[in-house]
Amino acid sequence: MSGTLIGVGTGPGDPELITVKALKALERADVVAHFAKRGRRGNARRTVEGLLPEGIEELPLEYPVTTEIDKTDPRYIKAITSFYEASARAVEAHLNAGRTVAVLSEGDPLFYGSYMHLHVRLAARYPTEVIPGITAMSGCWSQAGIAIVQGDDIMTVLPGTLNEDELVRRVSDTEAFVIMKVGRNLPKIRRALARAGRLGGTVYVERGTMNNTSMTPLADKADDTAPYFSLVLGPGWQARPQEGVA
Amino acid sequence: MSGTLIGVGTGPGDPELITVKALKALERADVVAHFAKRGRRGNARRTVEGLLPEGIEELPLEYPVTTEIDKTDPRYIKAITSFYEASARAVEAHLNAGRTVAVLSEGDPLFYGSYMHLHVRLAARYPTEVIPGITAMSGCWSQAGIAIVQGDDIMTVLPGTLNEDELVRRVSDTEAFVIMKVGRNLPKIRRALARAGRLGGTVYVERGTMNNTSMTPLADKADDTAPYFSLVLGPGWQARPQEGVA
Repeated sequence: MSGTLIGVGTGPGDPELITVKALKALERADVVAHFAKRGRRGNARRTVEGLLPEGIEELPLEYPVTTEIDKTDPRYIKAITSFYEASARAVEAHLNAGRTVAVLSEGDPLFYGSYMHLHVRLAARYPTEVIPGITAMSGCWSQAGIAIVQGDDIMTVLPGTLNEDELVRRVSDTEAFVIMKVGRNLPKIRRALARAGRLGGTVYVERGTMNNTSMTPLADKADDTAPYFSLVLGPGWQARPQEGVA
Repeated sequence: MSGTLIGVGTGPGDPELITVKALKALERADVVAHFAKRGRRGNARRTVEGLLPEGIEELPLEYPVTTEIDKTDPRYIKAITSFYEASARAVEAHLNAGRTVAVLSEGDPLFYGSYMHLHVRLAARYPTEVIPGITAMSGCWSQAGIAIVQGDDIMTVLPGTLNEDELVRRVSDTEAFVIMKVGRNLPKIRRALARAGRLGGTVYVERGTMNNTSMTPLADKADDTAPYFSLVLGPGWQARPQEGVA
């Protein structure tokens, strides 16, 4: 009897934003696996600090490369593919030994999560469950109290890595948008939103729901530095009643 | 001292997909408000059955109209606006009396949720918190084990109410898509996906994470009937490794 693979969404950072189902999965797991930069503790693992059963076996999966090499470089692609394959084999060894492996995933496991690299390699051959998590974007718009989409609104989730013209085109063609992967793309994102007439009303949130979170209307943000855990929210629902009118 | 307004996401239907933070909010609330069709118990209220503190005061907010009148009819707009204003006043009376009101919201409160109609009328004047919830779409792609977006994918969330040409245009211009409000729009959605060459790989899920859920590749669905709680998922991540290859 092989063990079960469980992708466990740990949510956006606030440990209370984990689900009851995820907590139960951590309790029945034999092994807890988590991706991280070498020598660091990843965000998902930090989120469950204090929630893991005493003495549970951990399987850290440490990226060999992160931002040192360009992602289109064949050396990067080769290194990262080898890493995901080795990670899948490490998890598989536990599954073959009958051990249930919970793979921590910040946010939601199947929404841009590293867990997916294990899922596509293992889910067809082992009993697999995926426990959804609160996404970073949900955590951010909740913290900011932003009514993001209502009624027949369209919402578009965009990576900040898109080129400026493409960002202009996309944010001009949707009611609501969420821009992920802000980081060094912030100056370009700001220019694109200004060109599209969508800078007003747009909110910048960094480290949403974490202890050191901050947020500001993007138009008021004085500098162009942004950490990895930041995103830009463009609310829809243009027909909303005026705030404060009961 | 006025009470606090709390928008509480109850998640997609499985009671275990509620967050620890939402459970704590239900424990500290004096009143639990919930939207529903007249004479029925809404999905959010059903989800927390068994999770509410004994004897807590409930404030059901019952829609005067649902699908009987067209949503563009001025009579509908007048009736629904009056209803939201009366609902806000009912919640406000509790807040003014110093009572904390938790408003249940299926999925995530600020993602197409009825709670938003209270939020925009009250949040500027009362202490307000929003606790995010697992969205129906996250619940559905997790249940189906669908790797929805990875890397630099764009994801577009579309209402099934869009006209066919617009659906074709939108699903042709995104890596991943989620189509909400399927119901009676299913035949049109199916035609649009076929025209766009996106029918293959697309999955239909009804009542995601609920006890009576079911799912199927949309191309294999034999009939054109779909309940309100159904959606269509078009996965991105075209560069994913072949399933089952370790």
